[in-house]
Order: sequence, then C-alpha cells, then structure tokens
Amino acid sequence: MDRLDRQLNFILAIDQLKNIRRQNLLLDGSRRENSAEHSWHLATAAMILAEYAREPVDMAKVLSMLLIHDVVEIDAGDTFVYDEKAAETKAEREEEASRRLFGLLPPDQARWCRDLWEEFEARQTPEARFAAAVDRLMPILLNARNGGYPWRRHGITARQVLARNRTMAEGAPVLWERVQEIVADALNRGLLYDDDFNSSGDSAP
Amino acid sequence: MDRLDRQLNFILAIDQLKNIRRQNLLLDGSRRENSAEHSWHLATAAMILAEYAREPVDMAKVLSMLLIHDVVEIDAGDTFVYDEKAAETKAEREEEASRRLFGLLPPDQARWCRDLWEEFEARQTPEARFAAAVDRLMPILLNARNGGYPWRRHGITARQVLARNRTMAEGAPVLWERVQEIVADALNRGLLYDDDFNSSGDSAP
Repeated sequence: MDRLDRQLNFILAIDQLKNIRRQNLLLDGSRRENSAEHSWHLATAAMILAEYAREPVDMAKVLSMLLIHDVVEIDAGDTFVYDEKAAETKAEREEEASRRLFGLLPPDQARWCRDLWEEFEARQTPEARFAAAVDRLMPILLNARNGGYPWRRHGITARQVLARNRTMAEGAPVLWERVQEIVADALNRGLLYDDDFNSSGDSAP
Repeated sequence: MDRLDRQLNFILAIDQLKNIRRQNLLLDGSRRENSAEHSWHLATAAMILAEYAREPVDMAKVLSMLLIHDVVEIDAGDTFVYDEKAAETKAEREEEASRRLFGLLPPDQARWCRDLWEEFEARQTPEARFAAAVDRLMPILLNARNGGYPWRRHGITARQVLARNRTMAEGAPVLWERVQEIVADALNRGLLYDDDFNSSGDSAP
C-alpha cells in the first residue's frame, strides 16, 4: 500500500467513531451523543474559548489533539468518567486500541498521533492541560442544560463532579470557576445528588 | 450578558448541528451522517492529509475553518450539492444564518467566524482551497465504499461528480487525481450512472 492508501484507510476506519455512544444526551434530549460529534463540538469550543487557556497554546496542536483524542474508543469503548470499575482497565484497553488504529497510518503519522494522544492523556503541556479542561467542560455544560440525565441515572453527586473535574483549573482557571457555579446551580435544581457538598471545600471561600 | 456567557450560548446553540442530516450514509450504511460528525471527520482528514495542500497552509486556520464551515446549516439546512433548485437560494439562506448564529458570539469573534466562513466559501486563499478540496473528498470516499447510496438515489452521473469537484485540483492536486480514479472505479462498479463520461475530458490526458 502506498502512503495515501494508508492515510485514506485510516480516515475510513475512524468513521466508526460515529457509532460510539457517550453517556450524555444532545442538548435537546433527543438521543445520546456519539464520540465523533462530541469531538467536533469540543474542538469548536476550544477554538472559541482559546483566550481562557492558562498558558499560551499552539492552537493547531490543541485542535489536532482534540480531533483524535477519542479515536481509541473505536476499539476500547467510551468509559464513563464516574465508572471506577471500567477505569481500572481503561489504560490497557486504550493503549492497545491506539497501537492498532494509529498503526493504520504511515509510520511517521502513527507516531505523531500516538504522541498527541499520549500528550493529551498525560496533561503535562499547556496544550494538553487546556484541551483536557475543555473536554471536561462539555458534558457539564450539556448536562446542566438538559436535565442532568447521566448524573441522575448514575446517582452522581456534586462532590464527585467537582473532584473529578478540578484539574480544569490547571488548564483554564476561568472555565473552572464557571463550572463550579454551574455545578452549584445544578445541585440547587436537583440535577445532582446532594452529599457533603457544603463541606467539600471545592468552592468554599 | 458577559463575554463568557455569549461564548457558552453560542457553543450550546451549535449543538443543533448534530441534528442536521446529510445525504450520505455512514461507512457501515447504518444511517445518514449528520453535519457535526461530518465536520469532525473532515477536520481530522485535513489534519492527516495536510501534506497534499498545493500551497503552504496555516493548519490552525484550516481546522478552524472546517470546524465552523457547516454551522450555517443549523438555520439553512444541508443543501445537496447536486440539487440545482436548492442551490439558487443557498447563498441567501446561509448568509442570514451566518448573521444570526455567529451573531450570538461577542462582536470580535462573530466577525472572525463570519470572515472564516466567507473565506472558505470564496476559495481564494490557500487555506480555503485546501479545506474545500478535503470537504469535496469526504462524501466521494464514503459513497464509493458503501454502495453509492446518494448517487444512485438521485441518479448522479460520473460526469456530474467530476464537474462538481474539479476545483479540488486548486487545493490538493494529488487528492483530485485520486478522486478521478475512485470515480472511474465507481462507474465501473455501477455506483454512478454512465453518461458521456468517456468524452467529458475531465480525466483525459
């Protein structure tokens, strides 16, 4: 196979991301979101919210990272962020998926995409920290505006959401501030379960 | 409303792109593709195929352009590229949609997004020519691999596909070469209607 064949085969193979269903619903509540449309929404949000990155970022890199960050789910499935059991095997499943899927590309691009994906997961660079913060923002924004379906269905508490997403502060402190307001409001409206929210310290002065 | 409110409102408003259905099917033929997942697939393809841009391109700009290029369809609908009647009103419908939707953003970003969208439509810059070429490639790639459903359904001929997409040569000549091979093969396999394909001159030496 020539180089372009490999590239086109990869592009066709990742079509399958359109069939990977996430936990959250579309804003209109009509159905669950898939990971391909999530990736589009997320990358577009990052483009619009770029000014809130805590450090200067290379946007071509942020966008590239976000476009491929969920491709591994084609083999590994979407792991619900509050599913602790699934989280145990997530890294191994996704590592294998990354080898197979990015391995469809010519070797230099396979390496590039694996590096981008690993960089995103590790959150050790300005681009990865910002990209990960926007990734965290998206389901919270949607859930808070359409009835909190996955939160209520899985009995998620406000404290869990805050604990899970506090790393947002490393990538986009202003967005993290806003998320804390959104979570407090969602708790007031009964979209999130109450627990020791008031003593969690996450949003205490 | 403060700046971040406007930005988040825009991000929520464009969720609706996930409900805009295109003519082509997913690769597995299970359903029609929506414009949000198309935008993701297209931007990811542009990232992988960047080396085929005829001129040097700023990839942050190409990706930003592709992420927002279909947002106007939320109000204007997806116009099938071979529908000549719908094409008559397309520009006006999309212009109005662009004003309303991008107008949800803070003024500087509304201007930026409208400029990006207009630049994409006009195909007068290296970024727009390359982005438009990859946009043309995607449905051809999918249709040729999953039975040519929209082509057969609407009686599209090989010559129509070649005539419609020859501007690809301005943005990505290597991809345009490949598309001509794909179209010739699709014609052989009966996925496209025959006409005076052999005398169209599109792929003649």
